[in-house]
Amino acid sequence: MMTSNKVVDIKALAQDLRAGHRAALARAITLIESRRGDHQAAARDLVQALLPDTGKAVRVGITGSPGVGKSTTIDGLGMFLVERGHKVAVLAVDPSSARTGGSILGDKTRMARLAASERAYIRPSPASGTLGGVAAKTREAMLLCEAAGFDVVLVETVGIGQSETAVCDMTDFFLALMLPGAGDELQGIKKGLVELADMIAVNKADGDNIKRANIAAAEYRGALHILTPRSEHWHPPVVTYSALTGTGIDVLWRKILDHRTAMNASGEFASRRRQQQIKWMWSMLEQRMMARLRADASVRAKVKKIEAEVADGRVTPSLGAEQIAEMLR
Amino acid sequence: MMTSNKVVDIKALAQDLRAGHRAALARAITLIESRRGDHQAAARDLVQALLPDTGKAVRVGITGSPGVGKSTTIDGLGMFLVERGHKVAVLAVDPSSARTGGSILGDKTRMARLAASERAYIRPSPASGTLGGVAAKTREAMLLCEAAGFDVVLVETVGIGQSETAVCDMTDFFLALMLPGAGDELQGIKKGLVELADMIAVNKADGDNIKRANIAAAEYRGALHILTPRSEHWHPPVVTYSALTGTGIDVLWRKILDHRTAMNASGEFASRRRQQQIKWMWSMLEQRMMARLRADASVRAKVKKIEAEVADGRVTPSLGAEQIAEMLR
Repeated sequence: MMTSNKVVDIKALAQDLRAGHRAALARAITLIESRRGDHQAAARDLVQALLPDTGKAVRVGITGSPGVGKSTTIDGLGMFLVERGHKVAVLAVDPSSARTGGSILGDKTRMARLAASERAYIRPSPASGTLGGVAAKTREAMLLCEAAGFDVVLVETVGIGQSETAVCDMTDFFLALMLPGAGDELQGIKKGLVELADMIAVNKADGDNIKRANIAAAEYRGALHILTPRSEHWHPPVVTYSALTGTGIDVLWRKILDHRTAMNASGEFASRRRQQQIKWMWSMLEQRMMARLRADASVRAKVKKIEAEVADGRVTPSLGAEQIAEMLR
Repeated sequence: MMTSNKVVDIKALAQDLRAGHRAALARAITLIESRRGDHQAAARDLVQALLPDTGKAVRVGITGSPGVGKSTTIDGLGMFLVERGHKVAVLAVDPSSARTGGSILGDKTRMARLAASERAYIRPSPASGTLGGVAAKTREAMLLCEAAGFDVVLVETVGIGQSETAVCDMTDFFLALMLPGAGDELQGIKKGLVELADMIAVNKADGDNIKRANIAAAEYRGALHILTPRSEHWHPPVVTYSALTGTGIDVLWRKILDHRTAMNASGEFASRRRQQQIKWMWSMLEQRMMARLRADASVRAKVKKIEAEVADGRVTPSLGAEQIAEMLR
């Protein structure tokens, strides 16, 4: 009677998930994504129970503009890994996605081979209003995938606004995909990306495009050369590959492992993970506070009014903050 | 009797400050920087009262590594402006400064000419533990300078960690100073800087260094060329100048005005200011929350313990956030 009254049997679910049952993993992620209060409490217990089984995967963030061949690359890289005995989970952070409108990963035909593999698990981006919410759910989904035995997690992002930072903050290696330009029209690197990327990979280095891809790579290399790298132990390389033919996919993976070796040797790997966890906690706290301000319609309206007054220069930011702090009490 | 009991006569202070009395400005900034609760409340009232008189200055952030010639540049640019009828305030954001240890602007001999000018006001960085606190005080000091009639505010930063972002968030134009490299040893641009800079200026383009400065500028230009600019209406220029001889100082100012014209025309000027105000308010709110967590020694210790557990992977960030949220109630 007791257990049937509970929302979820956490212990059983955790056990099934640890055993690698895909259905259990899917159910657990759905629980995490639920907005129901009781589901959220259960999800918190579940993740806490599974925590000792997490953290062992290679976490890779992948970004690139539409048309760069992100899906084909993930499909190719994923299959390369699966064929070498890895278990690969593919997640996504796309705050603009809506479950109904079709998330960036909703259409599994985009990664046809990987979607058919038993050793791979593809999950579309959680649908939610805020980037913070989407990122939080994806981070916890990543932990669940690790507990279910996936040893490589690829997190895709569409690269709109701050979503790249969010994905970089939850992964060990951040890969930026680019296209070879045509003549002068070299594809620009978004400034924020330079800050984040651990590697730039130029796709479509095949057939007539090889020369163009090499030229693009040389230009990007020149640009990166002038920038001080984030770590003195890792200078982000620029490589070319072809998701279509598979040429160079192995290099992508080798560089990811080289980076891991270098970061482990310097101690930066562990410290980056620790920093990420702490940052994650504070951002969860911020979300909680923001959620409180959004929960009530009249509070929401007041916050909107204060924001407008501050933006118009009628109220100082300091006074505006005080007024909102009062509402949080 | 009533007024003598009050900490400060806000109305009189505001009036003196609006009239441009330097002593009133200095007293008002000291009030803002005070940690006493009654002082803080008075400062809030003062800034709110002066708000209609703020916002009219050209706000310029200036960064550069030690040795790049920041003080000489500010001295030269400031004098150039003063001689043309401007009133120039120089502020600083340096979270590492301590009032006693000597702030980066403490020694006014660093800007000897400007310090002697009646049309200039130089104020060292507020001394405080956190970047957020220092930045908040500098932002309010900037408003006071504007109300006192200063129509150009230069905000210097040492460029450590996030202080550059903080200064960029409170200014209209962000200027990065660089040195010409010697041969292959071109000075690297810090990645975060590329994201923020509205202009890169290579100093020490004088005497034997002119050629080297030009080469450095060309290289930086090449690197920036590949990066997508933040605004389609402004491609950050790379210029050379000499703070020593004064050559090119006029170009720095002209570019700042060009940027202002372009941003005004596109409507980005107003929207950037509005966004800055809103962001500022939320960051004040965050600081209030953090201050509450720091105020009590036992709370501080608990937060530290939770952070360590989260970093070690013993507690999920979600649960950690919940525990801290409880303490904030």
